[in-house]
Amino acid sequence: MSSINSVKEGDLVEVKTSKSELSGMIISSPNPKIISLKLDSGYNVGIPKNGIKKIKKISSKKHKIDPPRLKMKKSKLPQISIITTGGTITSRVDYRTGAVYALSKPEELLASIPEVSDIANLRILNPFSMMSEDMGVKEWQTLAQETAKELNKKEVKGVIITHGTDTLHFTAAILSFMLKDLNKPIALVGGQRSSDRGSFDGAQNLICATHYCLSDIAEVAIVMHGSTEDYYCIANLGTKVRKFHTSRRDAFRPINILPIAKIWPNGKIKVNSKKYRKRSKGKVVADTKFESKVALLKFAPNMDPSVIDFYIKSGYKGIILEGTGLGHVAVQSKKSWLPAIKKAINKGIFVGMTSQCEYGRVDPYVYTNMRLLMGAGVTYLEDILPETAYVKLGWVLGQTKKLDKVKELMLENIAGEINKRIPSKAFLY
Amino acid sequence: MSSINSVKEGDLVEVKTSKSELSGMIISSPNPKIISLKLDSGYNVGIPKNGIKKIKKISSKKHKIDPPRLKMKKSKLPQISIITTGGTITSRVDYRTGAVYALSKPEELLASIPEVSDIANLRILNPFSMMSEDMGVKEWQTLAQETAKELNKKEVKGVIITHGTDTLHFTAAILSFMLKDLNKPIALVGGQRSSDRGSFDGAQNLICATHYCLSDIAEVAIVMHGSTEDYYCIANLGTKVRKFHTSRRDAFRPINILPIAKIWPNGKIKVNSKKYRKRSKGKVVADTKFESKVALLKFAPNMDPSVIDFYIKSGYKGIILEGTGLGHVAVQSKKSWLPAIKKAINKGIFVGMTSQCEYGRVDPYVYTNMRLLMGAGVTYLEDILPETAYVKLGWVLGQTKKLDKVKELMLENIAGEINKRIPSKAFLY
Repeated sequence: MSSINSVKEGDLVEVKTSKSELSGMIISSPNPKIISLKLDSGYNVGIPKNGIKKIKKISSKKHKIDPPRLKMKKSKLPQISIITTGGTITSRVDYRTGAVYALSKPEELLASIPEVSDIANLRILNPFSMMSEDMGVKEWQTLAQETAKELNKKEVKGVIITHGTDTLHFTAAILSFMLKDLNKPIALVGGQRSSDRGSFDGAQNLICATHYCLSDIAEVAIVMHGSTEDYYCIANLGTKVRKFHTSRRDAFRPINILPIAKIWPNGKIKVNSKKYRKRSKGKVVADTKFESKVALLKFAPNMDPSVIDFYIKSGYKGIILEGTGLGHVAVQSKKSWLPAIKKAINKGIFVGMTSQCEYGRVDPYVYTNMRLLMGAGVTYLEDILPETAYVKLGWVLGQTKKLDKVKELMLENIAGEINKRIPSKAFLY
Repeated sequence: MSSINSVKEGDLVEVKTSKSELSGMIISSPNPKIISLKLDSGYNVGIPKNGIKKIKKISSKKHKIDPPRLKMKKSKLPQISIITTGGTITSRVDYRTGAVYALSKPEELLASIPEVSDIANLRILNPFSMMSEDMGVKEWQTLAQETAKELNKKEVKGVIITHGTDTLHFTAAILSFMLKDLNKPIALVGGQRSSDRGSFDGAQNLICATHYCLSDIAEVAIVMHGSTEDYYCIANLGTKVRKFHTSRRDAFRPINILPIAKIWPNGKIKVNSKKYRKRSKGKVVADTKFESKVALLKFAPNMDPSVIDFYIKSGYKGIILEGTGLGHVAVQSKKSWLPAIKKAINKGIFVGMTSQCEYGRVDPYVYTNMRLLMGAGVTYLEDILPETAYVKLGWVLGQTKKLDKVKELMLENIAGEINKRIPSKAFLY
């Protein structure tokens, strides 16, 4: 039997409260009234000191938090590269102000998740560090190049990219197009809660991502919590996933498709369908050319079409419309978008139609208004997500400016972005 | 025993196929090879003639399809007004081309759903007819005025508005703001399938909407299928609902809130919470002033902020940003949106922040980038949906142009658009 004051950071303890019995390692606590415990599952919990009925020290400093530990290679373990880019997963909260700040050394995070280094040897790269909303083409290109370089090393089994969650799906989508002939798994992970919170999700996400990188699935996937509990993660195809909730840990949901796989922290992987690219021995090519003059434009009723004229005048090469329902914008009203759209297409600008409905497919054959739009040259983009269509268009226009070829590539299923048969179960998955 | 050739439209029949036995009234069929049957549930099915094993005529013309029938008042039944505006629910498919065209007389639709006129006496108004993506402020104002006029008639128990589904949630939201001191139920309904299809959903939606209009709930609600089967409808608060799927019949889902109620075609109503406005004896006021110079602007990474300058130059009075996650746009990159946003606010333009995440709430207190945006005067709009914020802002700017007052009204919960506690069950409902 120990007292609360006799235990310290690094100690392995057993704690009994009125509700539960827990055991784990004491880690740095943001609040003096709370003991933070790192459980064997990799999950952190905060326990109010005044709720502790019993605390027992098992051993001292079994898991020393010591970055150099990461450099000790365990020769039998497979090799994985981790590219850190910033975001909540490598951040901490300043409890005085409530604000989040970045860890100066992202490897600190990994050092606090020993499970990961028990599965694989890790090489950490940090090409840049920023909040994900600040990322742009330059960062996407760097990421694609760094990732390809790592994947093309014989000993590397896969690449994990840690990243802010806000635009994680945009980055996953663009990497899906930029990395041609993908030969190994790429897992993008983030954290919805920072690493010093009891509800930190990054540990489980990283553990599951590590398992994903050792699988035979050669796809770009976002690997994050599948449910609010620390139970399993889902790996979602990079071109068919969205951040569906501002703060929940299970925010990333598959759209118009089921997850590629469910992954449990103990390494169990259950794939939903065998239809994924398999690990192969070829080389990955990073094809990073990108045309930045592309716009994502969401329509709303009563909205003035003059914003299209603005994009024409500003020299844009492509516009992805987020229309309503099956792919509509105003066509037969005073504020018809048709003349401006015609003008854009006549100037050689690609105009693609997606839907602002979360699920489903655009279809130009049902209503007169859509037939008029299609007649004007609007390309209906099947069930491609607006965000995916936006980055794909920038990438396609980086390959060619010929409108016919652009149309053809936009309608070609390059990285799973088009799903001909949407399973009913995918709705609200 | 009858033969297929001896039965005709309006006959009540029993039909036996290899799969099932059905009974109902024969209605006009779009295809000579198919018999269309209107079942007692209000649901239409198409039966291929060559699959019919047995057909038996029960009686002739029990339900005569005869528009004047609607004018026959049943004195004991309550009075409901139906305002038709166009859309799929009052359309038919041209089976030669696959295209959809509007019914010339929307009352034809109602005449084919006798259940509705067994529940209530109906008065049909048709102020205009168009596809919903073509609607704008003028139509919203007309609808608000017509609806208020009907609701202020003593004998009218409620108003049903039939409407295209594409922008049904925009119209539901703006009516929620324009109709002050709401005293009776307003149900907006649409159809995801046209009235001559076996999967026509408008009949059940209209039947449930009629029951809704006889309830004590004085809210603007969208009443549509709750599941893909013809089982029950859900009534969703007009400010907290979205078209979540391009084509499914259960496309309309509640966001950050549970449905107000489940409604079964037999009239059973199960409310989720008593927190709704109750039917009252006061008068409704249609407050329809609206400022059209408002923009809904979705952010994407790498997107150029110059579109904000365009809105400033074009004399816009307000911008609703659809940021990422908890409410982000690029702030610390070369393409920072901060200078343009500051400029807009300095010119007296209201800039409000919502999230492009489907669920959850924006929160400016977590990250540095958001603190900078809030410092520049961006108003974080809690859990208001971007579409709702967009129409609300037009309405608020119709009331006042004073920026302080606009901010205050945008953060005031006027029509249930702000939900302080989001139930966990609301996610992916």
